[in-house]
Amino acid sequence: MKALLLKGPRELSIEDVPEPRPEPGWVLVKTSAVGICGTDKAFYTGSYPLFKKPIVPGHEVAGVVVSEGELKGRLVVSEINFPCGRCEYCRRGLYTHCPYRRTLGIDFDGGFAEYFVAPEQALHVVEGLLDPVEATQVEPLAAVLNAFAQYPPEPGDNVAVVGTGNLALLAAQVLKWMGVDPVVVARRGSSKAHYFEKMGFTVMSLDEVREYIKRRTPEGLGFDMVVEATGGTQGLDTAIEIARPRGVVHLKSTPGSKFTVDLTRAVVKEVRIVGTRCGTFREFRKAIELMSRGLVKPVITSVFEGIDSSVKAFEKSLSEGEVKVVVRL
Amino acid sequence: MKALLLKGPRELSIEDVPEPRPEPGWVLVKTSAVGICGTDKAFYTGSYPLFKKPIVPGHEVAGVVVSEGELKGRLVVSEINFPCGRCEYCRRGLYTHCPYRRTLGIDFDGGFAEYFVAPEQALHVVEGLLDPVEATQVEPLAAVLNAFAQYPPEPGDNVAVVGTGNLALLAAQVLKWMGVDPVVVARRGSSKAHYFEKMGFTVMSLDEVREYIKRRTPEGLGFDMVVEATGGTQGLDTAIEIARPRGVVHLKSTPGSKFTVDLTRAVVKEVRIVGTRCGTFREFRKAIELMSRGLVKPVITSVFEGIDSSVKAFEKSLSEGEVKVVVRL
Amino acid sequence: MKALLLKGPRELSIEDVPEPRPEPGWVLVKTSAVGICGTDKAFYTGSYPLFKKPIVPGHEVAGVVVSEGELKGRLVVSEINFPCGRCEYCRRGLYTHCPYRRTLGIDFDGGFAEYFVAPEQALHVVEGLLDPVEATQVEPLAAVLNAFAQYPPEPGDNVAVVGTGNLALLAAQVLKWMGVDPVVVARRGSSKAHYFEKMGFTVMSLDEVREYIKRRTPEGLGFDMVVEATGGTQGLDTAIEIARPRGVVHLKSTPGSKFTVDLTRAVVKEVRIVGTRCGTFREFRKAIELMSRGLVKPVITSVFEGIDSSVKAFEKSLSEGEVKVVVRL
Amino acid sequence: MKALLLKGPRELSIEDVPEPRPEPGWVLVKTSAVGICGTDKAFYTGSYPLFKKPIVPGHEVAGVVVSEGELKGRLVVSEINFPCGRCEYCRRGLYTHCPYRRTLGIDFDGGFAEYFVAPEQALHVVEGLLDPVEATQVEPLAAVLNAFAQYPPEPGDNVAVVGTGNLALLAAQVLKWMGVDPVVVARRGSSKAHYFEKMGFTVMSLDEVREYIKRRTPEGLGFDMVVEATGGTQGLDTAIEIARPRGVVHLKSTPGSKFTVDLTRAVVKEVRIVGTRCGTFREFRKAIELMSRGLVKPVITSVFEGIDSSVKAFEKSLSEGEVKVVVRL
Ligand SMILES: NC(=O)c1ccc[n+]([C@@H]2O[C@H](COP(=O)([O-])OP(=O)(O)OC[C@H]3O[C@@H](n4cnc5c(N)ncnc54)[C@H](OP(=O)(O)O)[C@@H]3O)[C@@H](O)[C@H]2O)c1
Ligand SMILES: NC(=O)c1ccc[n+]([C@@H]2O[C@H](COP(=O)([O-])OP(=O)(O)OC[C@H]3O[C@@H](n4cnc5c(N)ncnc54)[C@H](OP(=O)(O)O)[C@@H]3O)[C@@H](O)[C@H]2O)c1
Ligand SMILES: NC(=O)c1ccc[n+]([C@@H]2O[C@H](COP(=O)([O-])OP(=O)(O)OC[C@H]3O[C@@H](n4cnc5c(N)ncnc54)[C@H](OP(=O)(O)O)[C@@H]3O)[C@@H](O)[C@H]2O)c1
Ligand SMILES: NC(=O)c1ccc[n+]([C@@H]2O[C@H](COP(=O)([O-])OP(=O)(O)OC[C@H]3O[C@@H](n4cnc5c(N)ncnc54)[C@H](OP(=O)(O)O)[C@@H]3O)[C@@H](O)[C@H]2O)c1
Ligand SMILES: [Zn+2]
Ligand SMILES: [Zn+2]
Ligand SMILES: [Zn+2]
Ligand SMILES: [Zn+2]
Repeated sequence: MKALLLKGPRELSIEDVPEPRPEPGWVLVKTSAVGICGTDKAFYTGSYPLFKKPIVPGHEVAGVVVSEGELKGRLVVSEINFPCGRCEYCRRGLYTHCPYRRTLGIDFDGGFAEYFVAPEQALHVVEGLLDPVEATQVEPLAAVLNAFAQYPPEPGDNVAVVGTGNLALLAAQVLKWMGVDPVVVARRGSSKAHYFEKMGFTVMSLDEVREYIKRRTPEGLGFDMVVEATGGTQGLDTAIEIARPRGVVHLKSTPGSKFTVDLTRAVVKEVRIVGTRCGTFREFRKAIELMSRGLVKPVITSVFEGIDSSVKAFEKSLSEGEVKVVVRL
Repeated sequence: MKALLLKGPRELSIEDVPEPRPEPGWVLVKTSAVGICGTDKAFYTGSYPLFKKPIVPGHEVAGVVVSEGELKGRLVVSEINFPCGRCEYCRRGLYTHCPYRRTLGIDFDGGFAEYFVAPEQALHVVEGLLDPVEATQVEPLAAVLNAFAQYPPEPGDNVAVVGTGNLALLAAQVLKWMGVDPVVVARRGSSKAHYFEKMGFTVMSLDEVREYIKRRTPEGLGFDMVVEATGGTQGLDTAIEIARPRGVVHLKSTPGSKFTVDLTRAVVKEVRIVGTRCGTFREFRKAIELMSRGLVKPVITSVFEGIDSSVKAFEKSLSEGEVKVVVRL
Repeated sequence: MKALLLKGPRELSIEDVPEPRPEPGWVLVKTSAVGICGTDKAFYTGSYPLFKKPIVPGHEVAGVVVSEGELKGRLVVSEINFPCGRCEYCRRGLYTHCPYRRTLGIDFDGGFAEYFVAPEQALHVVEGLLDPVEATQVEPLAAVLNAFAQYPPEPGDNVAVVGTGNLALLAAQVLKWMGVDPVVVARRGSSKAHYFEKMGFTVMSLDEVREYIKRRTPEGLGFDMVVEATGGTQGLDTAIEIARPRGVVHLKSTPGSKFTVDLTRAVVKEVRIVGTRCGTFREFRKAIELMSRGLVKPVITSVFEGIDSSVKAFEKSLSEGEVKVVVRL
Repeated sequence: MKALLLKGPRELSIEDVPEPRPEPGWVLVKTSAVGICGTDKAFYTGSYPLFKKPIVPGHEVAGVVVSEGELKGRLVVSEINFPCGRCEYCRRGLYTHCPYRRTLGIDFDGGFAEYFVAPEQALHVVEGLLDPVEATQVEPLAAVLNAFAQYPPEPGDNVAVVGTGNLALLAAQVLKWMGVDPVVVARRGSSKAHYFEKMGFTVMSLDEVREYIKRRTPEGLGFDMVVEATGGTQGLDTAIEIARPRGVVHLKSTPGSKFTVDLTRAVVKEVRIVGTRCGTFREFRKAIELMSRGLVKPVITSVFEGIDSSVKAFEKSLSEGEVKVVVRL
């Protein structure tokens, strides 16, 4: 089959590789669409080292099950953590942290290929609910939901989202659904803020947010919760600054490089910084429901056609103003 | 009265100043002993800017109440946050974050003087329970307890303490009382590790801890909880490294300068970084009880006599190997 | 002034009494409207003993401030707990449990009179936001919000509300706002279920709910959260039955008499039963916001005019099918 | 092999039955000792209906693994929930609630026989750490730890234990280890209170506790946490009475029959009633550690020898003053 192989920074090519073979309990899936995420870009640009070389990237993936069984012929999305099911983390329900897991498109060949394999248990049917291109966004939406499942806002809380990328867009919509109308903190000259404005969100610069806090949050002390999703190493400083004493900062960015942050301020304010990552099957289900009911609408800025367009798609994904690039197979 | 005045970096002198006068509900306290804390040193060396200039430093303080009333003549320690009692933070019970509060020795004249004033409600009687010198350590012990009140370990958890200063010593003892026997992570050549060893704690270098984690924590993935108390900007990186997925990192250090940390790792592991600061009246009470029952023993490495020795005491507090310097008046 | 005096079971009369006089920090309020709540009925029928005899009942109250000051002339609603502000519960932020508090209409004369007094701090302006009759429902709505502030559902959770009275109606709407679409469990022949249906909620009998659970909740084991608001002593058994293992049961009913419940089942399922009561100033604010934005609409089934109609209003409030009876003054 | 068969209320006999055969992943264990728990008694007296008829009772069990494998020849204790490992509850880490589980001695033949079978994963080695008789108490100790894992006390909290049976004894010791010195509430004329006194615990009658609360708990309002372990239906009323506002009541008793309780009081005080049951592998490990380090010492009041003594042992277990009856095989 044809697959996109990443061999090192910027070394990306379509090659012919053997079709992967599912183990017992796993199935073969024909890829329908696959999105490019921050991690993919970090592997591509080299800000992350590769865990497997070469690797087929792609973990935001939808496809049709080929193997026999209950799921055969159905459009599915895949969780990305394939755990052992037996270790202590698995037994505690923390299977996304199983040290024996394989992670789709991270250390295990992913969705930028005609086929991929996954454990049946990791698949969620989206047929009749979502089209393949938008279905690729179930995975990041599940990651967003995971943050709020671990540390939910109280409905009516003052919440800010820092950043204007895909996660920020998903987070803002999820927050709205949860009874919270977030303020979005964008860079001056942001190339993506307009997507938020179109959806009716309040977008502000950091200076405006500082004013807002003084006037509109209790005693002028800041937001109950801040979601950091800038993709950079500076956003956390902003998030800590605008969080109130005892506030929660959801940290989503994974830039790879070191952060430089004033954490003395976090101690003095007693802020809690919560790192979160992939959703479990429960968040996948909620994500599918939210998207199929139209409560969360992913913004996909570019769709490429065919696996052969993947290299171009990666290049495109790096350009400013792109929220999400998806390749349809 | 005589007071120690700090006017800027390294500008410290004993001067004659008017005795402070208590407002209604406040009392005048004759200082018995006052300790030097990290914040005092940071003001002194200039790594923190002064909030008030000049300021009488000192918030680890014990003294005898002079004003008429129920407390007259009794040895007390003082909380350091003097809140308004009316704002939203006060009404929610978060009075240590009251934006209208005055903070003893921070933005309000503190204990390095013959007298200081404090609201009666902020005082806790230690007479007959503690001697004045050790009583100065109620305040930092309350700050340690506050961390565990907010995010307690489960008894029997794997916990590490990174750092070997005063807070680390107090935290280790509190953890032991809570059914947790912590591992202490010290620098090679540490000047203070021996205090922990004398108390029976296990002290390790970072390399040894890495080995320990592999062999002794579930699936070799790290500690359930890590207390960062190094006073520096490097300790957090260690803390995140040795915490397990979904582990809690208590962040206590307030070095002033920026931290440089690999927070991508914190996101991937879903670590929660919890900044905490001063205790409330509840932690003060528990601190007094723990110390008076001998369950926590502060380590005071140098005691100076008389307010006039304060400048020397400050210099001494900067030397390696000092855990806590206290001046007895 | 004219006031409604309750002297014992069914002993209710309009009498002339002296106008109450506000203490310092308190204000006199001219009553605009006052609702009848379950507690009022329980005092009236005698299922609760009176805490004060005679008492002016009424704690769901809106009025216009008469005393000089910032609030003069403005339409307000009142919190019902008037705490001491100094005790340990107050300082911890648990002021609704202050043992020295006075409670409006419970152990302190309430709103069924031409005037009542309250501390300025307990009042919330609703002028321009709510009309007096609906404003009476801010208080019960705050009580509902308090439950979810303490133990929030996760958005998308399976939640059931047992009961069809006023609290159930408010809870169902709040849940919807929080991203949860609750199932309402009504008695066969319920006199109030139609209010829920009109609002678009799914209403079921217990038998239907049992079927629903099997088909629609994970592994057929029940609801993540159940709100018990039947006003009776039987609803809790239902709530425990339909909650899933480790589910949360919000217990709101205060029938006075003893409950007879199969709690062995609660132990085996590891259910958490959470009793909750009055909201704090934070829930009052959210309640006002929710109602003024039309996100929660109280159902008021009867409005009586004038303090003289109060006895009739009480009688009416006992009849089946009444959700909420309010007297406008 | 010989086994004790329970066929209905008081119908207990030793019979010859086929040895159970382990499924793949399971092992055969030769019973060394087995304790009699409240549930066993409830089945025996008929206050619980049998889930399986006849059943071999016994879930507090230690034995030596007979089957080939890593565990062969080693003394082990067994968890009692044998889950499917695949359902949603299993994947969330709530495997003790797996609806497809088999439960040792409850709905699946247990330890009152020469042999029993269990999944290898459910077994915990105690060889060299515990003798078989005391090892039977790992299971109830794990159940106690489970309560505190879900809702831990804060160290230094005011905690009461209501009841004087085996669970109460284990809970009191665990609490002490956690930095809490509980008050034990016993019946007047209690037959078991002396065990607590011997261990140094403070034992009081309900009247004495009421006095204690007034004098020794903040504002005289009650305990932060109460552990209800009376085995009866009355203890919960006491527990709610003596808990403070917002306190936690751990409910452990499973009498089978209905409780009659004043839950209006629980609502007014905003008490949280937390039902908890079996521990997971994590609590089993902690239990073994606590017992092997001598931090928790089970009280075994009668030891019978040989499976043939089992019927007598059951009769004995019903007599007053018995804390725990164990049969050694
Ligand atoms: N933890 C998880 O669960 C998870 C899951 C998926 C991805 N991620 C990571 O999350 C991060 C965000 O990914 P993404 O795909 O949503 O977005 P992204 O493509 O990284 O875009 C973030 C955008 O935020 C804006 N921005 C950058 N710095 C900012 C600042 N200081 N203040 C305000 N706005 C700023 C920029 O857009 P403008 O041009 O509009 O300024 C930037 O393009 C990445 O690091 C990604 O790898 C994490
Ligand atoms: N948040 C709060 O509640 C609170 C309260 C009081 C103080 N503080 C702050 O907490 C910090 C600690 O104060 P402190 O008085 O306990 O201690 P400290 O005087 O700052 O001493 C910490 C000691 O830890 C050791 N250390 C430094 N870096 C280390 C590393 N990377 N790994 C292991 N050990 C390391 C050093 O001792 P060796 O010579 O033995 O290596 C150092 O002297 C300060 O920043 C202080 O201002 C916070
Ligand atoms: N804890 C708090 O914060 C708080 C605050 C305010 C009031 N309360 C208390 O909360 C309770 C509810 O008060 P409320 O004013 O909402 O309602 P309510 O007037 O007590 O009405 C509850 C209604 O629920 C229905 N119902 C009764 N038993 C039921 C059952 N077993 N299953 C299903 N439905 C049942 C009945 O209506 P149908 O005719 O439709 O069957 C009943 O009229 C009262 O005890 C009140 O005192 C508590
Ligand atoms: N949820 C779980 O995890 C779990 C696990 C195992 C067992 N259990 C259940 O927990 C309950 C307790 O079992 P157990 O074996 O510890 O004890 P138990 O044998 O039921 O003994 C409890 C003892 O408490 C005393 N007592 C009874 N009523 C009391 C009251 N109102 N106030 C104070 N003391 C009272 C009595 O002893 P005196 O003669 O001294 O008065 C009684 O014998 C049982 O229902 C059992 O089935 C639950
Ligand atoms: Zn695993
Ligand atoms: Zn304040
Ligand atoms: Zn009070
Ligand atoms: Zn299962």
